[in-house]
Amino acid sequence: MVGGGQLARMTHEAGIPLGIRFKLLSDTPQDSAAQVVGDVVIGDYRDLDTLRDFARGCDVITFDHEHVPTEHLRALEADGIPVRPGPDALVHAQDKGVMRARLDALGVPCPRHRIVADPADVVAFAAEGVTAAGADAGSDGFPVVLKTVRGGYDGKGVWVVRSAAEAAEPFRAGVPVLAEEKVAFVRELAANVVRSPHGQAVAYPVVESRQVDGVCDTVIAPAPGLSEELAGHAQELALRIAKELGVVGHLAVELFETADGRVLVNELAMRPHNSGHWSQDGAVTSQFANHVRAVLDLPLGDPRPRAKWTVMANVLGGDYPDMYGAYLHCMARDPQLKIHMYGKDVKPGRKVGHVNTYGDDLDDVLERARHAAGYLRGTITE
Amino acid sequence: MVGGGQLARMTHEAGIPLGIRFKLLSDTPQDSAAQVVGDVVIGDYRDLDTLRDFARGCDVITFDHEHVPTEHLRALEADGIPVRPGPDALVHAQDKGVMRARLDALGVPCPRHRIVADPADVVAFAAEGVTAAGADAGSDGFPVVLKTVRGGYDGKGVWVVRSAAEAAEPFRAGVPVLAEEKVAFVRELAANVVRSPHGQAVAYPVVESRQVDGVCDTVIAPAPGLSEELAGHAQELALRIAKELGVVGHLAVELFETADGRVLVNELAMRPHNSGHWSQDGAVTSQFANHVRAVLDLPLGDPRPRAKWTVMANVLGGDYPDMYGAYLHCMARDPQLKIHMYGKDVKPGRKVGHVNTYGDDLDDVLERARHAAGYLRGTITE
Repeated sequence: MVGGGQLARMTHEAGIPLGIRFKLLSDTPQDSAAQVVGDVVIGDYRDLDTLRDFARGCDVITFDHEHVPTEHLRALEADGIPVRPGPDALVHAQDKGVMRARLDALGVPCPRHRIVADPADVVAFAAEGVTAAGADAGSDGFPVVLKTVRGGYDGKGVWVVRSAAEAAEPFRAGVPVLAEEKVAFVRELAANVVRSPHGQAVAYPVVESRQVDGVCDTVIAPAPGLSEELAGHAQELALRIAKELGVVGHLAVELFETADGRVLVNELAMRPHNSGHWSQDGAVTSQFANHVRAVLDLPLGDPRPRAKWTVMANVLGGDYPDMYGAYLHCMARDPQLKIHMYGKDVKPGRKVGHVNTYGDDLDDVLERARHAAGYLRGTITE
Repeated sequence: MVGGGQLARMTHEAGIPLGIRFKLLSDTPQDSAAQVVGDVVIGDYRDLDTLRDFARGCDVITFDHEHVPTEHLRALEADGIPVRPGPDALVHAQDKGVMRARLDALGVPCPRHRIVADPADVVAFAAEGVTAAGADAGSDGFPVVLKTVRGGYDGKGVWVVRSAAEAAEPFRAGVPVLAEEKVAFVRELAANVVRSPHGQAVAYPVVESRQVDGVCDTVIAPAPGLSEELAGHAQELALRIAKELGVVGHLAVELFETADGRVLVNELAMRPHNSGHWSQDGAVTSQFANHVRAVLDLPLGDPRPRAKWTVMANVLGGDYPDMYGAYLHCMARDPQLKIHMYGKDVKPGRKVGHVNTYGDDLDDVLERARHAAGYLRGTITE
């Protein structure tokens, strides 16, 4: 696996019972996954020679993140190394412009969007949306969402702008900019699916994802009150995208649910995803185990839930670097709490872990997850 | 953790979400745990200097097996390294003579037993049992079970003898020999508990353990048809032993259930144990996670079951060294199957993994576990 973050850490954990010999390419020995994996190569994934040396002897290469250059992936494939997901699929998770164009071609519902050239073009894009249904826009068509097509995550590389003046910033990086209508969604959902090279695919229950300041805060599985029809539609959409794009491994389809009962595709991720962390303790087979099974072309495991409700809450770093006291408190308060720490130094706002809770009573399950996450961050002190 | 076997492998796996930095002392880099742990020292646990070098910088030392010499553990403690379980507790899992003497002193019911000096003494021991209630013995008191007090496991170091002539073999190693009546048990049970340094303790449901040729074959959690009263009694017995012996970490108390509704202690193990593997997929908190929590003096997790029935079946090596085809078949046949492979080369009879299954219907859960284990071994080929 290329990339030493928490996704690699948890993928290694899930691979241990499967008997997988896991090899990691990590930036530093201190990275989250590098702390717990046996076979670690330290190096820069942007350097093709490093990637080639790393890949030698691997049965298959997969990724903790989307940042490996597409041309490097093609070079590895040319060397005969299976790359899963492959570059032709992965580019849709790397480049939002390519992703939108492809989803349009497939007729998959997306927010209104187009690549914009400069702030004046953003004003034109906004004006085109004044009469569009479902957009959360004023008489000038603003606000508009601007995204650099590459390099963004967790709210980075995304701007919500209200004027031509505000629209200047995103163009400064010199990367193409995608404009999207600001969708008047009622909530965000995620449809997670896993697909293997021989075409087997499984769909997890559709979850509700709640964001705070552009960062995932809480995930509820399954999404409360979601109609079976819309849930099934979202799962089919994700399975269809996985198939049409040739995805191998885990695909997260982030969705907006609109007031009129539609879903629009927000983002794609082709790796285990924050919206699937609940599956570690809440599903028969976790997203990490199924990602491993898929990239190795093993039969996939059952994605069904084990509990009526499972809630995941992210633990962000707070003002206190030492979480140990809070960690003890949370374990003692709730012996059923499932803590997942990433081994990262605490910095304010940094994702350093998550907690999962499950049970029959959603209010209780939500309260336990939020209390633990808040206590670990330091925002709850009782 | 000292020892690179599968117990260390699975303990590391359980420590990853807890954010634990796991360091391993392993005989070879090929050992089960050494394949998946990041921080591995290769060395001989029988060498005190090796142990001391390994222990430097560790917060606490724990064990994959009981073979570290007691005097070495005392030396580590004298160096100021917490050893959990400590030597005064661990000796009861290392030396069956010490264990029996201590359990006698505590009034814990055990099979009739005493240390025997030679084959003639075995004949005398056998004769003393002719009138004993509950023993599975003929008019001469035979058969008798002989065990070397140290070094046995999985049926090794244990003999069932029917005459003075057969009783010669166990004395050849020059190790003290313990004679025990052969208990006419109806089945074997195990009571697994975990105890922390500050005295918190949790008890797992009492399980039924089925042995084939002296090796654990199947474990059913909870033990079917066990009365609440006897289950509670067995749990209390295990908690009491853990407390009285000062155990820290996981304690497995292997028990005989007799026809007249009593339980007798067979063996003790102070580490995660084969009879607790079901807890990885069947309990809120696995024995491995709770062992880690205990040895680090963290609050313990909930030991309660997540499913009505969970079955563990050991996968033994068969005649075919390549299990890959069988592994694929089992995953495809049962997407709910939980496979745990140890990364070991296949040798006939060697434990190379286990499977867990769970559900509401015991017959179905048993069939699925047995089929998978048998198929992986090669004894079932349909």
